[in-house]
Amino acid sequence: MHKNSKVQIIGAGLCGALLALRLGQRGYQVSVYEKRPDLRTVDISAGRSINLAFSDRGIKAMKLVGLQDKVVSLCIPMNGRMLHDTEGNTVFAPYSGRSHEYINSISRGQLNALLLTEAEALDNVQLYFNHKCTSVDFENGKSHFYQYEHKKEVIVASDIIIGTDGAGSAMRKSYYLGKKFLFSFSQDYLSHGYKELSILPNENGAFKAFKNALHIWGRDDFMLIALPNLDGSFTVTLFLSYDEGEYNFNNLTTPEKVLSFFEKYFKDALALMPHLPEEFFKNPTSPLGTVKCSPWHYKGKTLLMGDAAHAIVPFYGQGMNASFEDVVEFDKVLDESEEHATWEEIFTRYEKSRKKDTDAIADLAVDNFHEMKGHVNQPIFREKRTLETALEKHFPEAYSSKYSLVTFNENISYAEALERGRAQDKALLNLIADKDIVTNEHMDVADLKVILKKVQQATEEILIEDRVSKLGRKEV
Amino acid sequence: MHKNSKVQIIGAGLCGALLALRLGQRGYQVSVYEKRPDLRTVDISAGRSINLAFSDRGIKAMKLVGLQDKVVSLCIPMNGRMLHDTEGNTVFAPYSGRSHEYINSISRGQLNALLLTEAEALDNVQLYFNHKCTSVDFENGKSHFYQYEHKKEVIVASDIIIGTDGAGSAMRKSYYLGKKFLFSFSQDYLSHGYKELSILPNENGAFKAFKNALHIWGRDDFMLIALPNLDGSFTVTLFLSYDEGEYNFNNLTTPEKVLSFFEKYFKDALALMPHLPEEFFKNPTSPLGTVKCSPWHYKGKTLLMGDAAHAIVPFYGQGMNASFEDVVEFDKVLDESEEHATWEEIFTRYEKSRKKDTDAIADLAVDNFHEMKGHVNQPIFREKRTLETALEKHFPEAYSSKYSLVTFNENISYAEALERGRAQDKALLNLIADKDIVTNEHMDVADLKVILKKVQQATEEILIEDRVSKLGRKEV
Repeated sequence: MHKNSKVQIIGAGLCGALLALRLGQRGYQVSVYEKRPDLRTVDISAGRSINLAFSDRGIKAMKLVGLQDKVVSLCIPMNGRMLHDTEGNTVFAPYSGRSHEYINSISRGQLNALLLTEAEALDNVQLYFNHKCTSVDFENGKSHFYQYEHKKEVIVASDIIIGTDGAGSAMRKSYYLGKKFLFSFSQDYLSHGYKELSILPNENGAFKAFKNALHIWGRDDFMLIALPNLDGSFTVTLFLSYDEGEYNFNNLTTPEKVLSFFEKYFKDALALMPHLPEEFFKNPTSPLGTVKCSPWHYKGKTLLMGDAAHAIVPFYGQGMNASFEDVVEFDKVLDESEEHATWEEIFTRYEKSRKKDTDAIADLAVDNFHEMKGHVNQPIFREKRTLETALEKHFPEAYSSKYSLVTFNENISYAEALERGRAQDKALLNLIADKDIVTNEHMDVADLKVILKKVQQATEEILIEDRVSKLGRKEV
Repeated sequence: MHKNSKVQIIGAGLCGALLALRLGQRGYQVSVYEKRPDLRTVDISAGRSINLAFSDRGIKAMKLVGLQDKVVSLCIPMNGRMLHDTEGNTVFAPYSGRSHEYINSISRGQLNALLLTEAEALDNVQLYFNHKCTSVDFENGKSHFYQYEHKKEVIVASDIIIGTDGAGSAMRKSYYLGKKFLFSFSQDYLSHGYKELSILPNENGAFKAFKNALHIWGRDDFMLIALPNLDGSFTVTLFLSYDEGEYNFNNLTTPEKVLSFFEKYFKDALALMPHLPEEFFKNPTSPLGTVKCSPWHYKGKTLLMGDAAHAIVPFYGQGMNASFEDVVEFDKVLDESEEHATWEEIFTRYEKSRKKDTDAIADLAVDNFHEMKGHVNQPIFREKRTLETALEKHFPEAYSSKYSLVTFNENISYAEALERGRAQDKALLNLIADKDIVTNEHMDVADLKVILKKVQQATEEILIEDRVSKLGRKEV
């Protein structure tokens, strides 16, 4: 009889708004509390808004709530990576050998607004803005908020409370500080931080660089990327160490230094960014961290979802997709259990099936940080990438790279994509290093077929050997 | 000119007491603040004191401070594992094929007392008991203590402050809550907790079970172990899930249930523990957790060492040994850098060289939880263990098991022991599973030599393949 449950959601970001919409569609009484003002009524200059990579797992969630068509108009397809070298030369590397597989650039603000509007249209969903959660009394099912407009504390009790309040989650902090149960928790920062910059459109509003790509300037120890926006601009992000190397965030203290850094490493980008120095010092530098924790739920009272449960670094373009997939997976557990199970049983089942996948995408995202920075420049990784694209093109049913498994196969779990993808990468790199595979420009389909068999066989062997060596090892 | 530095150590446990002794020997002005009363003046009934596994890395530290001879009288050698099955049958499995390789059982209290007495004998070392550290102002180099005797707060400034205040470290908590720098941190609890029990000596003071072994009753989902004490008793530890399985800590609520649990699974142990029910309900149940963090130091002001920096689960018997090795490694950095480097440089070098090793032993200890519980009962693991003992016996120079690499090779780092040990285990398990190695009772040295070559070759291949697949991956 959960249908009568009053559900409280803390945080109306991407995950919270989607969850509110879906639980509203299922018939629950849903109240959502968000600390910021309504982003639909606040002026956000479109060009500067943050954009995100949106791909098949996210699209699956949009289908669940019936928004797949509305979301298309917000998307700019990115069919591959445009790799920029220090001389300004570019190479386009498709994300997949299958032409229908691509990712999208989407505005966080526009997508969030769409979800809020759809949720709000339901009679049984209420949104409350300007409510900052200060703590959650998880034992008694009550949340404490500071209401900015009336400058007072508000306490809200509900049957269940779901914390989708992001990487800095107040609910998670209450779990940690409460010490009422054994709470495993980790926050891991990379040595690098990031800063957002921009490439504005040209005078007639057109893109100054190729629109349908994720641009990457990978420089081993640091990296610049750019994603397109609907208004013709690109949002550019610099990933750089705080304190190591010749240039780092701590020592880039003058416009001259910033310009000489970009002049040396990102010359072609700099030519498109005349306003770089002002922007560099105006915009904040932010850290890159991974958060994992367990348990996500306290009995049948509270549950963490989205970044609040598993914040990841952005290098696989899966942060939003993983949070949206949380809602899909939670919905699946409700389908299976709603009629007869308690909330505690539902929360337990959800975490049991979901946690291994969010752990996996967290680890994959850190892997990809290194791949994007450096591997794209190394001959063995370029050879591997070229070969994989050819395999995907000629054997679309039989081969998927790790990237494809993660990004374009929403029915394969992240944990499975990690296991199979890592084994396949290991097989490929060793076959290339040992010259068991030799690629050249004249390869035909018959040659590729021989290579495919070798890769498949080596991958299976690696998977079997790994399983034998983990016999009985349940954790780690 | 660090010799003039005033060094403050928070915590006079095993690591803090050893560090105070060593830094005192090096000539520093050392003040040690400990929250508990002086354990040498408080009555601790010997039979019930906690004992620990003490092995070569710990012995190396004792040699550094000249205590190798004094410590011998506190040790009871344990030459192997005594495995007990549910019927009460026992099998003795040596820790190594080399007879001079064994571990020791030692009393935490007696060893700590020895270290305190030696440190206190130095003019330049001062010990202050009953000072509970409440927080560390790491930016200004000041510690806040609550002094129990005078019931007041005391603030102590020093040139450098080293936190050896254990798994619940106040210094580490100040780092976390201070939010003055990016602090990576994790606490990971196992599903199991532990409870200490005891087997008392018989009427004439003799051991009721074989003295020179670490006794193990491994039951897949839970486990009982026993280590000998000098007074003829054993300290027994039950490792059991909090809430899973037929029997767990949450449902063992009556003496009858406890007795039927032991009757079913630990019959021969129960026969030696007539006072079990009282003890079971008198003694606390405690969690098993791993703590990792970084950075350990704040500039040149403060540093975490021992469990405060890296608490590990007890299943490799390396907790104390790893903390003692911290002091050996810190001492080595001082030897190399003391004359010319700043404290910040010294702390940075120490963490850079040490952290990968403490991360490694943390992971190895969790691995061994599963090995001790379950693997000891599986045929393939028994076959592997028997074979490794034979290899160590016949080729003492050429072969060391993972256990030996970790435990008896104090000049091989934990990180190297993990990498080589895991590869070797994987090679062995796969060779046995594939029947590339077949063992039998009639093997002679020539047969073993063939096997040794196969294992070595397969191990090397695994190491090379792993390295190729990690090309350029710096973290993870």
